[in-house]
Amino acid sequence: MIYLDTAASYPILPEVKQSLNEAFEHYYANSASSHLLGGQVSDEINKVREQLADQIGAYPSEIIFTSGATESNNIAFKSLLLGKEVSEDKKHIVTTQVEHKCTFAICDYFKSIGYEVTYVKPNKGGIIETDAVTNAIRPDTAFVSVMHVNNELGTINPIDEIGQVCFDAGILFHSDAAQSFGKVDIDVDDINVDAMSFSAHKIGGPKGIGAIYIRDLRKKHLMPVIHGAGQEDGLRGGTVAAPLILGFGAAIKYFGKYYYSFKSKNVKQYFLSKLKAENVIFNVNGADTLANCLSITLPETDTDTLVRKNETLLCLAQGSACSSKEIEPSHVLSAIGLTREIADKTFRISFPLNIDYASMDKLADEIKVFS
Amino acid sequence: MIYLDTAASYPILPEVKQSLNEAFEHYYANSASSHLLGGQVSDEINKVREQLADQIGAYPSEIIFTSGATESNNIAFKSLLLGKEVSEDKKHIVTTQVEHKCTFAICDYFKSIGYEVTYVKPNKGGIIETDAVTNAIRPDTAFVSVMHVNNELGTINPIDEIGQVCFDAGILFHSDAAQSFGKVDIDVDDINVDAMSFSAHKIGGPKGIGAIYIRDLRKKHLMPVIHGAGQEDGLRGGTVAAPLILGFGAAIKYFGKYYYSFKSKNVKQYFLSKLKAENVIFNVNGADTLANCLSITLPETDTDTLVRKNETLLCLAQGSACSSKEIEPSHVLSAIGLTREIADKTFRISFPLNIDYASMDKLADEIKVFS
Ligand SMILES: Cc1ncc(COP(=O)(O)O)c(C=O)c1O
Ligand SMILES: Cc1ncc(COP(=O)(O)O)c(C=O)c1O
Repeated sequence: MIYLDTAASYPILPEVKQSLNEAFEHYYANSASSHLLGGQVSDEINKVREQLADQIGAYPSEIIFTSGATESNNIAFKSLLLGKEVSEDKKHIVTTQVEHKCTFAICDYFKSIGYEVTYVKPNKGGIIETDAVTNAIRPDTAFVSVMHVNNELGTINPIDEIGQVCFDAGILFHSDAAQSFGKVDIDVDDINVDAMSFSAHKIGGPKGIGAIYIRDLRKKHLMPVIHGAGQEDGLRGGTVAAPLILGFGAAIKYFGKYYYSFKSKNVKQYFLSKLKAENVIFNVNGADTLANCLSITLPETDTDTLVRKNETLLCLAQGSACSSKEIEPSHVLSAIGLTREIADKTFRISFPLNIDYASMDKLADEIKVFS
Repeated sequence: MIYLDTAASYPILPEVKQSLNEAFEHYYANSASSHLLGGQVSDEINKVREQLADQIGAYPSEIIFTSGATESNNIAFKSLLLGKEVSEDKKHIVTTQVEHKCTFAICDYFKSIGYEVTYVKPNKGGIIETDAVTNAIRPDTAFVSVMHVNNELGTINPIDEIGQVCFDAGILFHSDAAQSFGKVDIDVDDINVDAMSFSAHKIGGPKGIGAIYIRDLRKKHLMPVIHGAGQEDGLRGGTVAAPLILGFGAAIKYFGKYYYSFKSKNVKQYFLSKLKAENVIFNVNGADTLANCLSITLPETDTDTLVRKNETLLCLAQGSACSSKEIEPSHVLSAIGLTREIADKTFRISFPLNIDYASMDKLADEIKVFS
């Protein structure tokens, strides 16, 4: 069994597991409690808030913990657009054809309440070009949302340029950084981003915890998605999940190191070199992509064989991880021009960072069997 | 240090910790992934869904996992009222003066969008009487929400009677069971409840996971609170937090046994008997309450001394756990007629179920010091 689906969820890092267990042992109190233990838990949470803020060049007061990037994306759209941050006659949203499915669901909701949405098409390399965003912006555009790294292709979008365009136009800019955080450097000021979504389980932290950065959070009039008893500056209700947050902190601390070491070893190049001779198409070749993620098409292969392999030996993603039980071709692959037939024969490989060369060789052999 | 704040959050049970660690080890995949590991994770999640459903007499298809009871309460109100389940001219909500603060925040939101809310007053014993709910119902009442067990008093409300009233009147009935689940038997059919909220961390499970029961979920037209990529029947987006759910399952399996054993040992009576001679008032005396929770007032005590004790030795709750950093008197204590001064001298003691008699004696001694 080879697990090659770390972009869907990265296995918990050993350091994270340790941190979680320590937190379960010591930091079980409710951080809202006024007693000694409650205060300690609250302090520990705020240390991670600072750590995350530091990592992205933000203030701790601009970070809210959530249950994950899906919730963060919901907060980004709903708290900013349904609060009092945008004038009511601006009801146009710009996003892209390659966002995570949850963003489409959020946009459908906004369409149902009278908004218009423009979906920017990526170029052939899967990248959202700045000009394409500029062209989509209208005088009534309230909000632009462009993901940092695409979850099916690993492509890295030029969100700093896009952020500049939005800043100049006075439009709120959000970016879903679920796949980039811990892998690509982020500075919220360089990017001119107003809101950014993060998830712990994409970097070896636990599922069920994430965060959102919102610029000048405390000065804004925001609408909560989950109304609660005042937690997280009143923006996100529910007993704060301290142990998960401490696990998230450990993931932030350690994942980046593993990633940069993996990247510097050129593991992806090694794998690609093993396959080059075979009948394999590398999608988005040449585009700026993550070091541990690639999208390949095996055009000569019988899809059923591929799928069966996937059900027994290889764990990799056909289509998007979050909707892979659907039989529709992936919306991302369609957007870069792949036909339904070709999309069916396309797989995302996302490596664990500690994969050894033996597994890699075995994997290349397995894929040769396919093609 | 004596932790007497289990109603705010119950320390993780050893069996839960083990289950979490096993899940972190084996069930790290994304349950939406089509490969072998994804399928296994999905199966494990569904086992817990069945377990929870069995426990409350529901169908597994009526259970949605959430991040906790706060989110579940949000879903109960918003998904039912903002979906297509109630005719649009019904804009009146009935709830109570003693709900958890998150319910007040949700009601404030509904007031801001044109709803009226009636807050039913409890009797002196802290109980919401069925007649009081009946009297609050109007022809335009869309929704009734009455908590099962109150978090500050431990009082158990007659929700089966209230459910019958709502059923007869054709009104949707929701109950927040965060404090009752695992301690008081629940059968959703006996109660005639349409939606019910649960939280894992109140019964020794991890923080960050909970659930909602919604009757005939799949036949209803519901509005998601967190729009996502189709997870949880399309009602709750986000990668499903499988390890937390397995931990929740272990908590459901083991907590009830500990609770019933604690209850049968009459631990609360033992504690009360130690204090009887002292100057202590037991609030809601005589009312039906939880076995491990009590509310006491120490009228002769200097509040500052109490608070200092709380900051060093005793971990117990002044006012509601979720808002205890506020200096306002608790809304629950106000509702049962306690003055601000008396509320200041009132504490909630919620025992861990494995407390030994020695700690109990020490505790009674400490409280004697106060009074
Ligand atoms: C780009 C992107 N956004 C959002 C999500 C959702 O994140 P979460 O599972 O934390 O809700 C994912 C992964 O599922 C993702 O890849
Ligand atoms: C009655 C009641 N409802 C809701 C909640 C909130 O639960 P959670 O922390 O799971 O969001 C609590 C506890 O904080 C509670 O006691």
